[in-house]
Amino acid sequence: MIENNFKINRLNLNETVNLYGWINKIRKMGDIIFLDLRGSNGIVQIVLEKNHLDYEKVLNFKNNDIISISGKVFERKNKNKNIFSGDIEIIANKINLISAVSNQLPILPFEEITALEQVRMRYRYLDLRRPNIFNIFKIRSEFNKYTRRFFDENNFLEIETPYLTKRTYGGASELIVTSKNHLGKEYALAQSPQIYKQLLMYSGFERYYQIARCFRDEDSRSDRQLEFTQLDLEMSFINDKEIEEKIYLLIELYFEFILKNVFKKEILLPFKRITYKYALENYGSDKPDLRYENKIFDLIKNNLIKLKDKKIAKGIAFEKNISISQIKKIKKDFKDNSINFSYFFVKDGIYSEGEIKEEFKKDINKFNNFLNLSNYFVIFLISEDKNKLLNTLGEIRIKVAKKLNLANKDKLKFCWITDFPLFDKDKENNLVSSHNPFVALKDESDLEKINLKKENELLNLMSRSYDLVLNGYEIAGGSIRIRDKEIQRKIFKILKLTNEEIDRNFDWLLTAQSFATPYHGGIALGIDRILAILLKKSSIKEVIAFPKTSQGTDELSGAPSEKN
Amino acid sequence: MIENNFKINRLNLNETVNLYGWINKIRKMGDIIFLDLRGSNGIVQIVLEKNHLDYEKVLNFKNNDIISISGKVFERKNKNKNIFSGDIEIIANKINLISAVSNQLPILPFEEITALEQVRMRYRYLDLRRPNIFNIFKIRSEFNKYTRRFFDENNFLEIETPYLTKRTYGGASELIVTSKNHLGKEYALAQSPQIYKQLLMYSGFERYYQIARCFRDEDSRSDRQLEFTQLDLEMSFINDKEIEEKIYLLIELYFEFILKNVFKKEILLPFKRITYKYALENYGSDKPDLRYENKIFDLIKNNLIKLKDKKIAKGIAFEKNISISQIKKIKKDFKDNSINFSYFFVKDGIYSEGEIKEEFKKDINKFNNFLNLSNYFVIFLISEDKNKLLNTLGEIRIKVAKKLNLANKDKLKFCWITDFPLFDKDKENNLVSSHNPFVALKDESDLEKINLKKENELLNLMSRSYDLVLNGYEIAGGSIRIRDKEIQRKIFKILKLTNEEIDRNFDWLLTAQSFATPYHGGIALGIDRILAILLKKSSIKEVIAFPKTSQGTDELSGAPSEKN
Repeated sequence: MIENNFKINRLNLNETVNLYGWINKIRKMGDIIFLDLRGSNGIVQIVLEKNHLDYEKVLNFKNNDIISISGKVFERKNKNKNIFSGDIEIIANKINLISAVSNQLPILPFEEITALEQVRMRYRYLDLRRPNIFNIFKIRSEFNKYTRRFFDENNFLEIETPYLTKRTYGGASELIVTSKNHLGKEYALAQSPQIYKQLLMYSGFERYYQIARCFRDEDSRSDRQLEFTQLDLEMSFINDKEIEEKIYLLIELYFEFILKNVFKKEILLPFKRITYKYALENYGSDKPDLRYENKIFDLIKNNLIKLKDKKIAKGIAFEKNISISQIKKIKKDFKDNSINFSYFFVKDGIYSEGEIKEEFKKDINKFNNFLNLSNYFVIFLISEDKNKLLNTLGEIRIKVAKKLNLANKDKLKFCWITDFPLFDKDKENNLVSSHNPFVALKDESDLEKINLKKENELLNLMSRSYDLVLNGYEIAGGSIRIRDKEIQRKIFKILKLTNEEIDRNFDWLLTAQSFATPYHGGIALGIDRILAILLKKSSIKEVIAFPKTSQGTDELSGAPSEKN
Repeated sequence: MIENNFKINRLNLNETVNLYGWINKIRKMGDIIFLDLRGSNGIVQIVLEKNHLDYEKVLNFKNNDIISISGKVFERKNKNKNIFSGDIEIIANKINLISAVSNQLPILPFEEITALEQVRMRYRYLDLRRPNIFNIFKIRSEFNKYTRRFFDENNFLEIETPYLTKRTYGGASELIVTSKNHLGKEYALAQSPQIYKQLLMYSGFERYYQIARCFRDEDSRSDRQLEFTQLDLEMSFINDKEIEEKIYLLIELYFEFILKNVFKKEILLPFKRITYKYALENYGSDKPDLRYENKIFDLIKNNLIKLKDKKIAKGIAFEKNISISQIKKIKKDFKDNSINFSYFFVKDGIYSEGEIKEEFKKDINKFNNFLNLSNYFVIFLISEDKNKLLNTLGEIRIKVAKKLNLANKDKLKFCWITDFPLFDKDKENNLVSSHNPFVALKDESDLEKINLKKENELLNLMSRSYDLVLNGYEIAGGSIRIRDKEIQRKIFKILKLTNEEIDRNFDWLLTAQSFATPYHGGIALGIDRILAILLKKSSIKEVIAFPKTSQGTDELSGAPSEKN
């Protein structure tokens, strides 16, 4: 049932074919009309000779008109080696206009355009005509197909969960829905199927998955969308101890399958695993890009410099050179008075230039030995605040790598981040869940041992959650879930919910937990982000058929619109 | 990778198996403890002997606790022929409690319960533990799998379209979404991917499909949901004339494939086709249940009775008998003074009883001959309003069929309804689109020929839309779409939109149509309804994992909740 197939070559010589599509280019050469016809899977050259009855009619056709043709396949004299059908042309017998353009196209489909994003989004249906863009959605469809095939074959059931659900405590990121039948009340659009998938485990659906739409009322950020697509899954287990390992294995096998079937790429399993602590200390980030090493090192502990006060010094070194102006720009971006920013260049083992205290210059040999390099440059920061140092160096690491092109675009570096703390501090310095409040503790008995009033003890609690990072992006996150309503209640209380708030918001979950719950855990994968990385696109907008702007507006339809 | 497999029989004798699941029943007989363990794909009997180390511990286990066991498969003495594993039992070696129930279950999973719907929905996760209910979602998952397989194999691309979109003109059924970042503005939840799939055809995606969530702010009706699932598809074509036939064929092949693969049922193709007019005149409905014939007939035209005035008389006959009290009840339900309701019973060719005018009784022989029956009963109505007569008889036809059990639950009667009028009248007597305002006309030149000011002429316009009906339910609807912006604008104007309203609401569509559009058409199938019919469930709620009530509330989470 493949119709309108533009995959025609010399094997089809003398066949009669019927095609329809867009005129990519129409031109008259001598007495002959040549038309490049574009269909969904290729381009072919159509030829109309002077003696054809419709010759005059066809002369009036324009680029981007839609036509149908019937004709015979002939070998072409001037072959075009760049396209599949470049060896042949079709001498048109019948040729008909299906639809004429009546307006000038703001985006031309047969050019590599640098149209403004706003124009591209407003006329997205024209943007989608461009073969490179069109192809993204062929691949996305394949990606979904093989994703489902993998989970079907592994006995997961696909179950659809509600998008209209209850507003939750602290649901600042929830989009609110109102119905004319429930004035004064509101639904929230589900941010994820989280609670529902836990309930499905309580029901006995041992393996659930879903390619689900998720909704989040994000503040405008560079690359988030109000609605995005998540591969969501959850499993229950016979043995509590095996959960993490089985989920890691499942996801690794999934990526092996997808990369092989959709992208014709082989990857090595298993993925690397590093702890949250290791990632922070060595890469200054919980989503390190491992396509380049360039670890953070401690200057004091490694005896590279000595400080008189109790400050900490951390640095990072690069073999490839950056320009002085670039490094000055980076330094300028971090004007935090509590951080001392130093850098220096070494050529052939000798200090070449930089901005460091004179007293450190005598230690250059120590750096040479420690780094085992004779040409390099080092950036190092001194401060009292270790986390600030690490985070800052993590950002510098990425900036420098970008300027030096250290990240090979063809490489895929997957990495599990494990051993996350259970709690974290948000920007307002409140204690919050690192992932979500349903994450199990590494050791539930810790809740008995520590002083729940002491924030530093709470911050030391470890969780059973994990992230998957690819090329510096968090592409998945998951955890083992709390199964016990008393533990769940304690967590809510630590998060400063009152009993009344717990009951009002989570009674349905706690009640459900009172009827016995199996061991279970799961993970959710950000499909848009994964596709953007695999297709080497800089934004997830490129892999969404009809995306919204970073501000959440839809340039195409004009949503959101003024209240009626 | 099938774990926790309860499909164990004598082929597994002496094997050691590891299982976890719910205790369906625990009982002590003599010194032995018997446990019925329930997993996602079956039940097995576990045996624990008196000398087992954990004997005392296990005695304290309760029904509905979750446990894990390891043990050896033995042949059972008292075989249970009703379950797959009824021939065997497992002598437990290790047995562990995974989770204990701490609360009495309001719904017991191992009983055929008649719990109140409210209780079932509130504790849906317990309701889902019941094997009959559980099984529905295994089938739904299979249904989705084979649906996607069919469309994948037929070269359709799966493309996700936005759920957050622009409010449209007359969008009284739209659920409204607000974002904290866009105060004073609003999005609508997409009622269907309609416009987006048309745009995808304009982009050149020749075959699109999606299993999409749709949202509609329905007034409470017996069997609608605020969010429901639609199989949505659209195709473009080389030839305008072939569209309907190809779509009919595609959908027929799809049902053949699904019924064969998921339900192990064969059906005969092609489906019957009847026009909208024929359906109304013969069944009093545009979604006739064809599992029983019982067509409406005209008493005047068939010379069965004579009337002095210009009224119309239509009737319906049944061979199987209804009771007098039942028919009196039906008569009572239709107390519309403009309709005269008569009925009579005939036994062995002779009038037996009824409520008809004396003058008609002499004509009983004519009925005998016309119906070619000697035992039957007839209901006939007399009125001036033909449509009212037909609609009323259509409802009576269904009511009587229900009382007489005429609809065989094992039969599947598919039927295409074709040749719909383009416009219809709503309850407030306004002219509205029969399907939607994007439906193409049967003959576009009609718009030039008729007087657009005359409603009766507009009501005579025919459209290129079609419905698919199964056992009396509309399960799908689709059409060929308007491709021309001038025609599209005319339709909006007929629907009383001002130019300003057209531009504000549909400018994005009309602009898109100015850049050339291929021939295209499509259809959308109501997945929930189709599954409910195929699974013989009376409500779509039964095939939705977490449904809302008819009032749109979620008994489980408590949504919608009071405004914060």
